[in-house]
Amino acid sequence: MSIRYVFTSIQLHVQNVEYMFGIVGVPIIEVAMAAQAAGIKYVGMRNEQAVEACRLYSKFSARPSSLEMIPAVVEKAVRSSIYGRPGASYIDIAGDMVNAKIDRANVRFVSCCPPAPVSQADSREITQAVRLLRAAQRPLIIIGKGAAYARAEKEVRELVEVTGIPFLPTPMGKGVLPDDHPNCVAAARSRSLLQADVIVLLGARLNWILHFGFPPRFSPHVKIIQVDLCAEELSNNVRAASALLGDIGAVVRQLLETVRSWRFPSDSQWWLTLKEKMTANAQISKSLALRSTLPMNYYTAFHHISELLPKDCIIVSEGANTMDIGRTMLLNDLPRHRLDAGTFGTMGVGPGFAIAAGVLEQTQKSAQRVVCIEGDSAFGFSGMEVETMCRYKLPIIIIVINNNGIYSGVDPKTWKEMEKMGDMTTIAPPVTLLPEARYEQVMSAFGGRGYLVRTVEELRSSLQESLNNTQMPSLLNVLIDPASDRKQQEFPWLTRSNL
Amino acid sequence: MSIRYVFTSIQLHVQNVEYMFGIVGVPIIEVAMAAQAAGIKYVGMRNEQAVEACRLYSKFSARPSSLEMIPAVVEKAVRSSIYGRPGASYIDIAGDMVNAKIDRANVRFVSCCPPAPVSQADSREITQAVRLLRAAQRPLIIIGKGAAYARAEKEVRELVEVTGIPFLPTPMGKGVLPDDHPNCVAAARSRSLLQADVIVLLGARLNWILHFGFPPRFSPHVKIIQVDLCAEELSNNVRAASALLGDIGAVVRQLLETVRSWRFPSDSQWWLTLKEKMTANAQISKSLALRSTLPMNYYTAFHHISELLPKDCIIVSEGANTMDIGRTMLLNDLPRHRLDAGTFGTMGVGPGFAIAAGVLEQTQKSAQRVVCIEGDSAFGFSGMEVETMCRYKLPIIIIVINNNGIYSGVDPKTWKEMEKMGDMTTIAPPVTLLPEARYEQVMSAFGGRGYLVRTVEELRSSLQESLNNTQMPSLLNVLIDPASDRKQQEFPWLTRSNL
Amino acid sequence: MSIRYVFTSIQLHVQNVEYMFGIVGVPIIEVAMAAQAAGIKYVGMRNEQAVEACRLYSKFSARPSSLEMIPAVVEKAVRSSIYGRPGASYIDIAGDMVNAKIDRANVRFVSCCPPAPVSQADSREITQAVRLLRAAQRPLIIIGKGAAYARAEKEVRELVEVTGIPFLPTPMGKGVLPDDHPNCVAAARSRSLLQADVIVLLGARLNWILHFGFPPRFSPHVKIIQVDLCAEELSNNVRAASALLGDIGAVVRQLLETVRSWRFPSDSQWWLTLKEKMTANAQISKSLALRSTLPMNYYTAFHHISELLPKDCIIVSEGANTMDIGRTMLLNDLPRHRLDAGTFGTMGVGPGFAIAAGVLEQTQKSAQRVVCIEGDSAFGFSGMEVETMCRYKLPIIIIVINNNGIYSGVDPKTWKEMEKMGDMTTIAPPVTLLPEARYEQVMSAFGGRGYLVRTVEELRSSLQESLNNTQMPSLLNVLIDPASDRKQQEFPWLTRSNL
Amino acid sequence: MSIRYVFTSIQLHVQNVEYMFGIVGVPIIEVAMAAQAAGIKYVGMRNEQAVEACRLYSKFSARPSSLEMIPAVVEKAVRSSIYGRPGASYIDIAGDMVNAKIDRANVRFVSCCPPAPVSQADSREITQAVRLLRAAQRPLIIIGKGAAYARAEKEVRELVEVTGIPFLPTPMGKGVLPDDHPNCVAAARSRSLLQADVIVLLGARLNWILHFGFPPRFSPHVKIIQVDLCAEELSNNVRAASALLGDIGAVVRQLLETVRSWRFPSDSQWWLTLKEKMTANAQISKSLALRSTLPMNYYTAFHHISELLPKDCIIVSEGANTMDIGRTMLLNDLPRHRLDAGTFGTMGVGPGFAIAAGVLEQTQKSAQRVVCIEGDSAFGFSGMEVETMCRYKLPIIIIVINNNGIYSGVDPKTWKEMEKMGDMTTIAPPVTLLPEARYEQVMSAFGGRGYLVRTVEELRSSLQESLNNTQMPSLLNVLIDPASDRKQQEFPWLTRSNL
Repeated sequence: MSIRYVFTSIQLHVQNVEYMFGIVGVPIIEVAMAAQAAGIKYVGMRNEQAVEACRLYSKFSARPSSLEMIPAVVEKAVRSSIYGRPGASYIDIAGDMVNAKIDRANVRFVSCCPPAPVSQADSREITQAVRLLRAAQRPLIIIGKGAAYARAEKEVRELVEVTGIPFLPTPMGKGVLPDDHPNCVAAARSRSLLQADVIVLLGARLNWILHFGFPPRFSPHVKIIQVDLCAEELSNNVRAASALLGDIGAVVRQLLETVRSWRFPSDSQWWLTLKEKMTANAQISKSLALRSTLPMNYYTAFHHISELLPKDCIIVSEGANTMDIGRTMLLNDLPRHRLDAGTFGTMGVGPGFAIAAGVLEQTQKSAQRVVCIEGDSAFGFSGMEVETMCRYKLPIIIIVINNNGIYSGVDPKTWKEMEKMGDMTTIAPPVTLLPEARYEQVMSAFGGRGYLVRTVEELRSSLQESLNNTQMPSLLNVLIDPASDRKQQEFPWLTRSNL
Repeated sequence: MSIRYVFTSIQLHVQNVEYMFGIVGVPIIEVAMAAQAAGIKYVGMRNEQAVEACRLYSKFSARPSSLEMIPAVVEKAVRSSIYGRPGASYIDIAGDMVNAKIDRANVRFVSCCPPAPVSQADSREITQAVRLLRAAQRPLIIIGKGAAYARAEKEVRELVEVTGIPFLPTPMGKGVLPDDHPNCVAAARSRSLLQADVIVLLGARLNWILHFGFPPRFSPHVKIIQVDLCAEELSNNVRAASALLGDIGAVVRQLLETVRSWRFPSDSQWWLTLKEKMTANAQISKSLALRSTLPMNYYTAFHHISELLPKDCIIVSEGANTMDIGRTMLLNDLPRHRLDAGTFGTMGVGPGFAIAAGVLEQTQKSAQRVVCIEGDSAFGFSGMEVETMCRYKLPIIIIVINNNGIYSGVDPKTWKEMEKMGDMTTIAPPVTLLPEARYEQVMSAFGGRGYLVRTVEELRSSLQESLNNTQMPSLLNVLIDPASDRKQQEFPWLTRSNL
Repeated sequence: MSIRYVFTSIQLHVQNVEYMFGIVGVPIIEVAMAAQAAGIKYVGMRNEQAVEACRLYSKFSARPSSLEMIPAVVEKAVRSSIYGRPGASYIDIAGDMVNAKIDRANVRFVSCCPPAPVSQADSREITQAVRLLRAAQRPLIIIGKGAAYARAEKEVRELVEVTGIPFLPTPMGKGVLPDDHPNCVAAARSRSLLQADVIVLLGARLNWILHFGFPPRFSPHVKIIQVDLCAEELSNNVRAASALLGDIGAVVRQLLETVRSWRFPSDSQWWLTLKEKMTANAQISKSLALRSTLPMNYYTAFHHISELLPKDCIIVSEGANTMDIGRTMLLNDLPRHRLDAGTFGTMGVGPGFAIAAGVLEQTQKSAQRVVCIEGDSAFGFSGMEVETMCRYKLPIIIIVINNNGIYSGVDPKTWKEMEKMGDMTTIAPPVTLLPEARYEQVMSAFGGRGYLVRTVEELRSSLQESLNNTQMPSLLNVLIDPASDRKQQEFPWLTRSNL
Repeated sequence: MSIRYVFTSIQLHVQNVEYMFGIVGVPIIEVAMAAQAAGIKYVGMRNEQAVEACRLYSKFSARPSSLEMIPAVVEKAVRSSIYGRPGASYIDIAGDMVNAKIDRANVRFVSCCPPAPVSQADSREITQAVRLLRAAQRPLIIIGKGAAYARAEKEVRELVEVTGIPFLPTPMGKGVLPDDHPNCVAAARSRSLLQADVIVLLGARLNWILHFGFPPRFSPHVKIIQVDLCAEELSNNVRAASALLGDIGAVVRQLLETVRSWRFPSDSQWWLTLKEKMTANAQISKSLALRSTLPMNYYTAFHHISELLPKDCIIVSEGANTMDIGRTMLLNDLPRHRLDAGTFGTMGVGPGFAIAAGVLEQTQKSAQRVVCIEGDSAFGFSGMEVETMCRYKLPIIIIVINNNGIYSGVDPKTWKEMEKMGDMTTIAPPVTLLPEARYEQVMSAFGGRGYLVRTVEELRSSLQESLNNTQMPSLLNVLIDPASDRKQQEFPWLTRSNL
């Protein structure tokens, strides 16, 4: 085994890197073995995306020019990754360093970087923010992933409960406060965004997920109180009426100290409006969820899944409708317990996220379960990773919501008729996949449990069995109506999510 | 459907683009539908690699600055791709062109580009090359992929048969002449490279696959006659004694006109040496191939596969040992009937190559079969594409050579013992995969035929059944000895292939 | 004039952009004219560097995909440039937008971004910092360019004067406090860095200019209190004992509130050591400065220049020895009144900086003078810009410190002898330039005043005349000893600057 | 001096690199000294452009990963640069290699690459080309820079003189045949392009310089016979009726062998048309050239310069009108004796080109003179390089055609009036420069001869004096009418050149 890998691996260990994920091949075998020798856990995966592309999207990238530089470069990579806005780091070690020798005396060893530094907002801006908040007729708090990264759940909960203001989580902000918190107005998302007159953004960005903060999804007169640790993000797309630069937790504490005992009345017109809309939306969802026709629709499937999932499970999700509808139907109770395809909608990340979460849970011997909810098309990107789950006996539960296609598919009968018409490359709609594909057998091929699910009863019993099984992964292949779609949107032309 | 896609699609059709492969999603659905409407066949895939990275590795890349430019840009992309050294082209169409209107009067329509132009070598260099050849004591012809791309099989065969010189194909040059041609010395590859005094390179590059042409794999005194269509490639790594710039077919014709009736004697010491080595190597391979112990080794498996495969089948291959040993054991009879992971050893390309070949065979109603031979690790990259094969009923035969790992694995018993020892992320060697994984069930999950193969008899019967089945794909999961490796190399330290 | 330029120009005006610098050519003429029409001042330059390269080094870069996007993109560019760590922005407007029409109704106009938001440090870290400071035996404050950018001169002065700690400016931090402030220990730079036990970094980075904070230039036991607005910069190269994330001014105010009336004793051993060293260094410099031999040396030239320059002048500087020695010899009294080649040592920036400063002074009708001190080699990069100075009648004073080469040159007599020896491309040392080149005539060619300076008297009289001339630029070509070099360094092997 | 530079320098010498141009600085001093020690001539320059950008525009770029690799990388760089289409190569040597040691035994030394290989066209395409040529009513040969690079002047001359076809040079193809050759129809450029029915392109590309080969500048029915060494260039923009891939010289020889004694009649209507147009254009030019009003116009200045320049001088040119008009007025008699800003119109290259040519002439002791004709704006980019010319005593003649601006300027009187109106940054047209700037004094500042030229007599006498002076460079500052422009174009909207 060559010197440099041992060396790099020891450095990673010094920087508190505990896990390594990769695909072996020459010369990565040596890296993986050196990592294990240095006490780092190694998880062998089945596929990887875009090697060179990593560098382009990394926050920090470097190519050490000598072996001596490796400790310093690794420290910089780890520090850059966790300080400021979090991001990936990329280190490219030249192949020709393999046989280079190193003199320990020339190496400057570097200890692990301290936790990320924390800053707080200017106190005059805090005063201005509280003034705006007190004057609001229809205030709204939006909780973004920045609040989750900042581990600010305690402070955010206190802000919501002290002030009594309604809140809305973004997809990655779900769980900072429980989705079933009485102040959560996710079920009236469109209405709350449209009519709010003062919005507090806690680590949430006004990007496409929030319709850029633009009319007609937002009021043209809305005032934004923006809390973010990244200066360049402040006033992006919409000019902030109050721009609070700093750590989310620290700034929310400042707000709490200033806002004191002020409280937005729970009998206000705003709360009445929102509650009315939430009730109406809940009824529509419920009526969709309780339809007894087969195949099931999205709402029925998610309703029953939701009823059975433990509150502390980690939910991973990707797909188109599957991810969008699942976001509204599956409640999160804890922060940082939800992972999805994110801002860029990259497909194929689900099983990898689930494995990472599963390994962590397994080695920490915690009882939390990892549930990975995949559209059938999304599952095609990285489905072979179920072998990895079986190899490491990770009791991940994969639920494939299978509508025979992307956005929509066709039923088996229609498919057979199309086949008679001639060459399917000219006939099959581009969105269709093979009807009723047996994805559960991809799991059973590697020793996990596979379930074919057509009815509510099958869904509930197979999910319950899977939850009881802590030894191996399971896959539920839930056949739903290929023509099932989500309920009507008020502004469908601008929506890619209904949160 | 928006104007631009119809427009782009019509242009692709004009440039004789017949097939489109992709993954739908917004806004690719419209592209795919427009392509079908324009008569282009669309094949929906399950995964794709490295979107942005494509641009970096493309020979031509462009971003049309207006809709009017599209026909000209598409023509340039197609022409750049097929003229000179072949390569990929990349066109990036900005999303904001969607709603732009176009005035047909402003568009310059462009017809399909003519076939690639052909050049031939300088006649003085031809004279010099023939002089070298006639003076050779131990001549060798190496046939590279350039000869296959140039469709020069007729000329190359004539050169070999008229001069009686031994030849060696590179991995992608296999089949330009049949591997069982009497002049083929692939079974004495190392010896022939090492001792040749004059080598004719026909579209083959002296890169790592040919050990850069350097000692100790080549004689330091070897004289290279290099034929290539790319000037910059001439004298690369080793200075050519004769550099023949031009189309391989045209240049070989020039050589034939000049060499006339000269013939290298078949009773020469060189032929005796090579034949002796070939016989010895054949015996080693044969003894490995005929071992009756179970699990099988690589040589046994390939020996029987080789006996049953039709001569005209298209062989796709990827993996480490699987690809390397398969290259020597599976004979090619026809040019351009072999596709593998290529110069860069990119994993995951096999199923995609097989689908492309399968669609082509299907629509041309030819009887040629596509056989895709995969290492078990390689299969993990794109294994979900078997659903695509089933969806389009492509009768591709996938043979997974399964040794439970990468380079080598462990048997099920050893694996179970390791599991008892504790956390597998710290114990399992990074090269290991789940032992005896049932890859054939991934195929049967989608309606194809899956076979679990442990014995020679099972291998032969399942392969024969698969060859008889022209309606659906099959997958043979061939369990081999996880400790099986290839036979000893003379220069293992520099080898990644033994051709 | 095409629509887009007017449009872009109006947007720049809305974002409070007041000046545009460029080189006209097709189609930049239209941009420049549109800018003038929109009230932006245009300064035509003579050269520009690295067009494409700009994008690579920019903090923000974008290519608007439609005319409608321009206002939003311009706002993002300006905001990114001034929020967080300052940097350049790059906007690439595609040539084919020229003839595109635009519907005003589709444009979202964007007002100028508010001033950059300000944050302050965590109060526990402040406490820790003050504890460290109070315990210090040999404290030192280093004032970096971050303090200048943050306009924190008032707070920094208060910190220095309340605590009585010695301070050192970095090259770009010079002038935040006056260089002749009693606490400034620049004249004992090496000693103060080496022996300090606690260092407060105010917006200064531990890069090569500060020897990375490493031994042997720093004590291995030094404790760093780091104040910076950029999280990723904290603990870079040396782990901070106290990391204070926030705006320099705001954090220094926090420190002041906590440190209260504590004061580092002026009769401490530390102050005695530093003062002794400063006195010794001052005597060496003075003895060099007062040498009466001709040609002058660097110290003599700078000594007299320094005596005549008004305190409020803006000093621009570039070169090797010229910039390094000038940094120590020319005192700054005001913040943001010094511009030099900076962290990357890019040559050729001096005249451009001087023109920008000169235009600003001219249009603000202030009486401050711009003095540009250039090495003779550095002047060669952009010397033709003196025509621009003359064209706009900017009363910039350029002082070329001319040693006939780079680092060192040869005298005219030696040069002539070398010429007799043969081909100068093989004989002339690569560092030599033409001896006694008459750079002052490059200025007089365009109507400015040029002075050839050989003696102290000529230097003083010509500089005084130039200071009296407020109508036109002047250039002093100061011939110094080509063998002149700076005084001996303690650690020459690691130094590129002696601050 | 460190090992690596000596090493790199020796390798450059082995590859027959004779000259090195650069700007010294750490650590380039060592490179330059090592180069001189290895017998390479070093020329120190005053400015350089776009360091990083070089890599982007290079044909070959590499960063050797070890000292041992340097010889091989240098050989690849040189070979890539001169084989196939010529281009720049870029080698980036990491700074940290400075102190690395090297074991000679590990280095594979590489000898200089052989001359570029030559190919010729397919004989069937030759037949087709000759058939087209013989059938032409209005044939035209366009001679491009490819013919100059290929050193095909002998063959091209024979083709023109045997067939009697009119020809047109592109800017960089000028001189392959003399501009005053009886078959040259440059004076009827627009007419000949527009009406030709068959065009032979000899190493010329249909890019913007040739209006892409599109109507209305070309006949929509024109048939193109294209000769090029780059396959991808064939049929670019216009589909070639005959595409001849190969070395220009070799292919023209093939054409000559096939065309034999066929000759296009000199009394044809085509020749009559062209001669008539040439006579008319010559009269317009002549009347402009002979105008006696002062200041002179472009045509007058170039007319007299043209009369005095020796036939074998090397002409370097850059600027806007200066380069365009100079191209038509200054005749070239020899191939590769003209250098201009080229396809991309990069400004600032003129003095560098002139120095390179001057050094070459000087060391070869040939009597050829280098004349560098610069627009006044263009001169501003690199004007300081006159110091380099003086330092090496290169007898280059610079002629600045000074119209007080870019495209056009204003006279001194108008300028003074504008100055009275207020702030020149808001008043001065962006195209204007300082009127009557004394560029000749920039030359005299360094010891060269400077001439201010206002009249024809001054122009002739100063140019004659400069031609007589072989010891030092000269600069003629030719003041022309700031409102002078070129004569009317037939298709001004598509023209950037009138060749």
